[in-house]
Amino acid sequence: MIQRPRGTRDFPPEEMEKRRFLESRFRREAELYGFREIATPIFENTELFTLKSGPNILDEIYSFEDKGGRQIALRPELTAPTMRFFVNDLTNYPRPLKVFYFGQCFRYERPQSGRYREFFQFGAELIGAPNPESDAEVIGLAAQMVSGSGLGAYNIRLGHIGVLRDKLREAGVPTESMPPILQKLDKKLYDEARPLMSKAGMSLASMEDVIGTTGIVGPPSVLDDYPGEASDYLKEVLSILADYGTVNVQVDLGVVRGLDYYTGIVFEMDAPCLGAEKQICGGGSYSLTELFGGEKVFSTGFAIGFDRTLLALEREGLTPPPRKLDAYVVPTSDAMRRQAYVVVAQLRKAGISADVDLMRRSVGKNLKYADSIGAKKVVIVGEKEAAQASVTLRDLGSGKQELVPLDGIVAALK
Amino acid sequence: MIQRPRGTRDFPPEEMEKRRFLESRFRREAELYGFREIATPIFENTELFTLKSGPNILDEIYSFEDKGGRQIALRPELTAPTMRFFVNDLTNYPRPLKVFYFGQCFRYERPQSGRYREFFQFGAELIGAPNPESDAEVIGLAAQMVSGSGLGAYNIRLGHIGVLRDKLREAGVPTESMPPILQKLDKKLYDEARPLMSKAGMSLASMEDVIGTTGIVGPPSVLDDYPGEASDYLKEVLSILADYGTVNVQVDLGVVRGLDYYTGIVFEMDAPCLGAEKQICGGGSYSLTELFGGEKVFSTGFAIGFDRTLLALEREGLTPPPRKLDAYVVPTSDAMRRQAYVVVAQLRKAGISADVDLMRRSVGKNLKYADSIGAKKVVIVGEKEAAQASVTLRDLGSGKQELVPLDGIVAALK
Repeated sequence: MIQRPRGTRDFPPEEMEKRRFLESRFRREAELYGFREIATPIFENTELFTLKSGPNILDEIYSFEDKGGRQIALRPELTAPTMRFFVNDLTNYPRPLKVFYFGQCFRYERPQSGRYREFFQFGAELIGAPNPESDAEVIGLAAQMVSGSGLGAYNIRLGHIGVLRDKLREAGVPTESMPPILQKLDKKLYDEARPLMSKAGMSLASMEDVIGTTGIVGPPSVLDDYPGEASDYLKEVLSILADYGTVNVQVDLGVVRGLDYYTGIVFEMDAPCLGAEKQICGGGSYSLTELFGGEKVFSTGFAIGFDRTLLALEREGLTPPPRKLDAYVVPTSDAMRRQAYVVVAQLRKAGISADVDLMRRSVGKNLKYADSIGAKKVVIVGEKEAAQASVTLRDLGSGKQELVPLDGIVAALK
Repeated sequence: MIQRPRGTRDFPPEEMEKRRFLESRFRREAELYGFREIATPIFENTELFTLKSGPNILDEIYSFEDKGGRQIALRPELTAPTMRFFVNDLTNYPRPLKVFYFGQCFRYERPQSGRYREFFQFGAELIGAPNPESDAEVIGLAAQMVSGSGLGAYNIRLGHIGVLRDKLREAGVPTESMPPILQKLDKKLYDEARPLMSKAGMSLASMEDVIGTTGIVGPPSVLDDYPGEASDYLKEVLSILADYGTVNVQVDLGVVRGLDYYTGIVFEMDAPCLGAEKQICGGGSYSLTELFGGEKVFSTGFAIGFDRTLLALEREGLTPPPRKLDAYVVPTSDAMRRQAYVVVAQLRKAGISADVDLMRRSVGKNLKYADSIGAKKVVIVGEKEAAQASVTLRDLGSGKQELVPLDGIVAALK
């Protein structure tokens, strides 16, 4: 038997219904916020991702040479393609430009529980506005998408890369030495951060101060101990989020991100029901356009892990039950088949989802099949009924039957 | 500037709206017919496609070795992945199993006008039913999807591989010699078909008879000249299609397909407005499961070229205009910003798509921006209005303004 590739998934109908349900919830919120959908190719020139994340990304992505000798890569994320698209073709759109996207991403890593080589991201980018209100707008959308999906328990952790960068700067760390230190701090790998900080000339006291700062999580008032521009900015974002009615927001000064292109706020969302792998969303403000050959443009965006959010909804019992077919049409004999096709066509034309026996089964077997595919009602097209220009309508839930005239079936099923 | 890969496309918002419009029309019809969506990975083990189409397919697809030394390929079509999924996991589902799919496919070929390396297919497969009524069901769905998309002019050409196979068999051609001959006949490459037929021992007269048959296109009555099982079967399919109300169906004995896995009917659909590249759909009945390690199961399916159908709709002027934002909220001063955020949050919560100034622009510039993003109305949040617990509502189409109490905005915009 030919298997699907390792780390990928197939989705059967009942799974796809849940996925489309969540996608449509996400899509609805993004559209209510005035974001509009875009799409980019499944693969990109590999350089796009090495420019953004450095050459080490090659170890984690699917990259290959095409027949024309070009290095291409299956996209590991969608912010870089979106900004590449912006630089190429969208710079003349009115700003801010608000876009969202939904699609497959790929990473080459050992498949583990809940982590796949092909996974799905839903994200949004607000391009061209560098204000607290544009940051709040994006965080507000992320929060509303998760809350609008129906998920009961989630929280938002908001930080600002300026808080730690300022501390490192004050401690004499040169700008070019910051990224590796911040990357270790972001992952709470303090034992690996300490030698880097020491090498950059930091005192023991300022090292412990910085490490202590990464552990600060709490209400907006925790910012009072960290005065400065970054802190003031965060407070303004938090107060606009309050106007928006966005709740569940905590300050977390440990959300730092180590990459140069982050410019200000950073945020993450968690679904506690997921346990250790609880993060469902990550975002922040950044500037990538100049890396890809455009002018510098400030943006704020996020990506939601679609698979993990769906898993969280399932854990909370919040995904919808399988959709039911409205009607299954059963002819009682070969002579009645043609009449059954006419009936099923009539139902579909009226917007009623309907199916008909295609296997020449007996009435009993057809009723069993109708039940197994989850039909709500069965329309029995029989000779006795035909003599009265009628059909029998049977409710598969209650078992109740009634005779319905041919020209009244649509009304009876609506 | 980093470019997107050759032969791929980015889709800006106004393009994505058209695409989602067509997708939702297709999806709606498939669901009314009782088909349910499935999804498979973007890439597969390359063997899946060489098993189905032979090793020559390698010249036309993106195939590469992953880091684990496995040969994988970006899918060139979705029937093989669907049947691989069926064999692996879906054999216990009640039959017939009716599924549809929508997604990207890839081919490595010189990009030309209207042909992309990344393209989109929407298709359906009815698995496990080998009757004229199951074939008619599938053709009926394809026709209804195209007609339900709004396309005015299209036609369906229906054939049966048995008609030509019978003629070749009668002329003494061994079964194993048929595929290459049929492939040439399918493409109307008669000069290349003749030496193959001659080598297979056919007389000149039967060669010309066979070639003549591939040119037969017309109403069901043309079948009267080609009696036999295949012809009788086609007549039954045509008569069920008439019951379904499917029109625009012609018999075309030149639709033959050269691959072994086709088992009976074959059909194609055209949109005449597309000129030379007019085919928008291809399908037929087949059996692939045994190739992939399963038991033999008869299926009928089709794939619609999503891009070409959209192009046809555009040529006919039938795609929808860009969607408009319901409301754009403008504060008249910095002091009114916070009130504006509260208003925009209130509108979105009520299901009204709304946006707010995020650039601290003047009222005049905001009105210009609102117009450029296609907002229907502007909500002006000003000090004078606030004194009366109201806002000004301005219709961007008519320019008409009215004062609306804060608690009546939602009602005024619904």
